Amino acid sequence: MVSEDPPWPELGQLVSLIVQQRTSTRAELARITGLARSTISQRVEDLLELGVLVESGEGPSSGGRRPTLLALNPAAGVVLAADFGATHARLAMATLSGQPEVERAVEIDIADGAAYLLAWLVDTFHEMLEERDRSAEDVRAVGIGVPGTVDFATGTVLWIMPGWDGTVVPEVLSKHFDVPIIVDNDVNVMCLGEYWSRGLADEKVMFVKVGTGIGCGVVTDGQVHRGANGAAGDIGHIRVMVPHDVLCLCGNSNCLEAVASGAALVRQLAAEGLDVRHAIDVVRMCQAGDARALRLVRVAGQRIGEVLASIVNFYNPSRIILGGALAGLEDNLLAGIRAVVYERALPLATRHLTIETTALGDRSAVLGATILGVHGALTPETISNWVRKRSVLS
Amino acid sequence: MVSEDPPWPELGQLVSLIVQQRTSTRAELARITGLARSTISQRVEDLLELGVLVESGEGPSSGGRRPTLLALNPAAGVVLAADFGATHARLAMATLSGQPEVERAVEIDIADGAAYLLAWLVDTFHEMLEERDRSAEDVRAVGIGVPGTVDFATGTVLWIMPGWDGTVVPEVLSKHFDVPIIVDNDVNVMCLGEYWSRGLADEKVMFVKVGTGIGCGVVTDGQVHRGANGAAGDIGHIRVMVPHDVLCLCGNSNCLEAVASGAALVRQLAAEGLDVRHAIDVVRMCQAGDARALRLVRVAGQRIGEVLASIVNFYNPSRIILGGALAGLEDNLLAGIRAVVYERALPLATRHLTIETTALGDRSAVLGATILGVHGALTPETISNWVRKRSVLS
Repeated sequence: MVSEDPPWPELGQLVSLIVQQRTSTRAELARITGLARSTISQRVEDLLELGVLVESGEGPSSGGRRPTLLALNPAAGVVLAADFGATHARLAMATLSGQPEVERAVEIDIADGAAYLLAWLVDTFHEMLEERDRSAEDVRAVGIGVPGTVDFATGTVLWIMPGWDGTVVPEVLSKHFDVPIIVDNDVNVMCLGEYWSRGLADEKVMFVKVGTGIGCGVVTDGQVHRGANGAAGDIGHIRVMVPHDVLCLCGNSNCLEAVASGAALVRQLAAEGLDVRHAIDVVRMCQAGDARALRLVRVAGQRIGEVLASIVNFYNPSRIILGGALAGLEDNLLAGIRAVVYERALPLATRHLTIETTALGDRSAVLGATILGVHGALTPETISNWVRKRSVLS
Repeated sequence: MVSEDPPWPELGQLVSLIVQQRTSTRAELARITGLARSTISQRVEDLLELGVLVESGEGPSSGGRRPTLLALNPAAGVVLAADFGATHARLAMATLSGQPEVERAVEIDIADGAAYLLAWLVDTFHEMLEERDRSAEDVRAVGIGVPGTVDFATGTVLWIMPGWDGTVVPEVLSKHFDVPIIVDNDVNVMCLGEYWSRGLADEKVMFVKVGTGIGCGVVTDGQVHRGANGAAGDIGHIRVMVPHDVLCLCGNSNCLEAVASGAALVRQLAAEGLDVRHAIDVVRMCQAGDARALRLVRVAGQRIGEVLASIVNFYNPSRIILGGALAGLEDNLLAGIRAVVYERALPLATRHLTIETTALGDRSAVLGATILGVHGALTPETISNWVRKRSVLS
């Protein structure tokens, strides 16, 4: 039986210390927290009984009996994750250690709006849970990436399009999943996904998405750099040099996005009388060896390279990862970017700089959204809350 | 008498907890460290006897007797700091809380080289110590800012000029002061000085120096952003748009520094047949209302503004502080910068952005170097070392 009225924040702290791998034995928990050994033993018994922790073998002896190691029970719950793009969504259900158990990729239309798509998301999440004999009670947190600007603190969509803007995503979803719901923009979650899934913990990573638009995410020391107003990474509206002025949707002219994004390439090719509508059409033309498309993509690469060279001088990242619909055009886009960055940025800043195409393909965003969820699920506060609920239910 | 063979790392940890203001009572020290109350009492007695800690009044009672508060003894040592510019140096001797006790501003010539200037520095530091009846034994750390590129980890000068390059500054100075010697470039220490002296702890601060050259430092969450290779902040070599190509000393063309720095303005005015040699001559001409100088400074401001607009979009700082020889030209340089940044950067990123001239004048660098020293002096390792020495001496 769970001890009467255990102090929940304290339980959260204990689990949190184990999750952060700062300890895995009762003796160390006592030492770190300063709580009496007998108190720790009682609390750990509670957590074992509740299925939050499991015993996971024995550690090395430090003189006496070999200590029993404690670990988070990976079966103690799941994290749900979603990556919304303009025309696709990728969903995942993952363990608390971030291992995806179920993944789904679905065609959507972001213009269907938040009300419709979030209702669809809830239904699909429920299907995925049922598929593994789980229920909403097993969900510890939800992580979501959306293709637009988000107020991270509240999860409010600031700018995607009408039908989304102003939506407080956690408000909608918490009716169905009463857990932390964390929302961020797509490039931030893509960068997080690369950083954590590929073990880039010692690196300063930039993820540059070149799709219909252009944006970037920055992760250093495990954290997304969001800037003072959550506006960081908006490289699509940096001015570049072009022979003739091009008006951007933002009202300024000659923004990188207006001259080098998928949308800009489509416009340039359409102006030459070609039947292209989406960034993917440009990719297909390049793959078919169309000289006009190849030339435009190469010039776009150079312009993106100019902007990245400036940012390399200023920020000195160790790795730039290219993603988005156009990222596959390695011989043209990536080559153009590399040439300009290595020519224009300072040698000290490029000596160990890697510029590469994503190795995770379409999955970086959903993996990053999963990480958002895992982080949200494993704060001491969240752990305290679900341990409390679990105790009431048991 | 100090207890026999006290565990030095542990003493360092205790002092460090007090310095970080995580606690100021014996009971809290016991709770946080998990050490027995009696052990803590003995260690604290040792530290009081050694003059490392002082008792600083009584705290609120939590039921029983009011606890005695502990604090670092501000008289327990000093920090030395130096800011080297091209033609000046500013030195300081400060308390462990960063309060300057002695400051000196001296004309120098950086071209005299490291051997000469570091020997001069040691002599002058000794004079400053004697002035306050201190000796080299009282010094806990030295912080130094230099006008060039530094390998922060080792304190090696990578690039100032011949006579400096390759100098491992800590190696030279540690013969005289056997304490942590921390060396960084001038813009980083200027940014640190503004951040800490002006209480900007919640801000993301950029310090942009416009003098003979152009560079910037970035401080977020109390830390300088150095980038993957310590090359971050080099905005002087970002390419800008100019009607005619200008070759930069770096070998590229149209770098910001080549068209908008003090040196560039001097060159432009000299090309018009005027007798100008230094950035300060340009300032004097502007102050005298010379239309040619004013026009060139305004154009330089716009070009600096273009680069900063890009960086505001990417990094989203909350404050940009302008310093360096040309920073005083508020009506022209600052106005030009502001106009372009507010026009070109995204509204979300500029809504709460402050762009201002330094309020610390010539002192930001020496205050920042002092902070470098204070941080170096108050690590658990450093504290352990000086407590150990103090014990041997007492």
